[in-house]
Amino acid sequence: MSGQADANSDRAIPQPVLNRIPTYLRAAEDLLADGTETISSSRLAKILGLTDGQVRADLVYFGAFGRPGVGYRVAHLVEELRRVVGIDKPWPVALVGYGSIGRALVAHEGLRRRSFDIVVVLDADPAKVGRKAGRCTVQPVSELEQELTRREIRLAILAVPSGAAQDLAEQVAAAGVVGIMNFASVRLRLPEEVIVMNVDLTLLLERLSLRLKVAGH
Amino acid sequence: MSGQADANSDRAIPQPVLNRIPTYLRAAEDLLADGTETISSSRLAKILGLTDGQVRADLVYFGAFGRPGVGYRVAHLVEELRRVVGIDKPWPVALVGYGSIGRALVAHEGLRRRSFDIVVVLDADPAKVGRKAGRCTVQPVSELEQELTRREIRLAILAVPSGAAQDLAEQVAAAGVVGIMNFASVRLRLPEEVIVMNVDLTLLLERLSLRLKVAGH
Repeated sequence: MSGQADANSDRAIPQPVLNRIPTYLRAAEDLLADGTETISSSRLAKILGLTDGQVRADLVYFGAFGRPGVGYRVAHLVEELRRVVGIDKPWPVALVGYGSIGRALVAHEGLRRRSFDIVVVLDADPAKVGRKAGRCTVQPVSELEQELTRREIRLAILAVPSGAAQDLAEQVAAAGVVGIMNFASVRLRLPEEVIVMNVDLTLLLERLSLRLKVAGH
Repeated sequence: MSGQADANSDRAIPQPVLNRIPTYLRAAEDLLADGTETISSSRLAKILGLTDGQVRADLVYFGAFGRPGVGYRVAHLVEELRRVVGIDKPWPVALVGYGSIGRALVAHEGLRRRSFDIVVVLDADPAKVGRKAGRCTVQPVSELEQELTRREIRLAILAVPSGAAQDLAEQVAAAGVVGIMNFASVRLRLPEEVIVMNVDLTLLLERLSLRLKVAGH
């Protein structure tokens, strides 16, 4: 992959392409685990329910991995895509909110395996402060700014009640966080350099419900 | 809203439009709670970060709600969109897997408030069977088919380990489920009439990581 094609140098990559890249990585990792050494764009496309051309066009955004007549070397694809996605190095993550979703995230073994390492857990409830949360101990939210700044944390997960989400999002952004995964059912208003990924479970269920209705179920 | 414009009769509605509809509903509900009686498409567009034309085009798929110079009657919009989305009536939901994600879902008060009512909880672990899970008691997965069929359940949430997901997905589909929200990091292979919504938290974090990298963070 050439330097010019690095993800950092091209800001015009369409959002749907960005959304697909981690799924290419998953597919490539599965193939690697199965011992597959090379794969054609058409076979990769079939696995992912995409077209041949889409796969080639998507991957070209990040450099030309494939070779005509040979396809992609799977091990190389995995290595490069891990770097493109940014999980070749661990992300220290702050978890704000240690309710039921917070506990599920701490218990989620896949997170650390995928380089997302929850290193700080904060909660506003004094009854939760001091409890063990995986390899962390729950700290009071009053320590948020100090802890996040000290540890240079760029990525935070907000798993707090809707009413508290905006205020806490502003606090984590002020502490230097540039990416927030937000589980609250609120649209956060933050400086535009902060990237928010909303995971609103009820909204997702509503999308599923609507798709079922549209399909005639 | 005319019968012809009903969601059930038009299967060609683009996926991005379907994905936006529940966000319109949220915005309309917020406006209703604030006492707003009517709203123009341009103001609704601004709230949602869309264009005026997009809002009007999206809502027209489900009938013409707006009136020129007046806009949308908020209470009417809420009522119609709840019906369109399919949450005007409760969905009985089966939860398969009572691990940490399953517990978070049972504890999630928003689900029932949004008409998603977990009425059956199943787990393969004999140690969990018989435990209280919200208003349910955890039942063994061996009772899956019988329970789902008896209760005519169409919607299931799979919160099980990746290795168990495919088999259990087939079982719920065989029991009549047509919509599955899947938390496992696996691509389920199911009859095409079954609609699967994947909620893969590590994949979502990878998308966020990639967006941060592309933004130069």
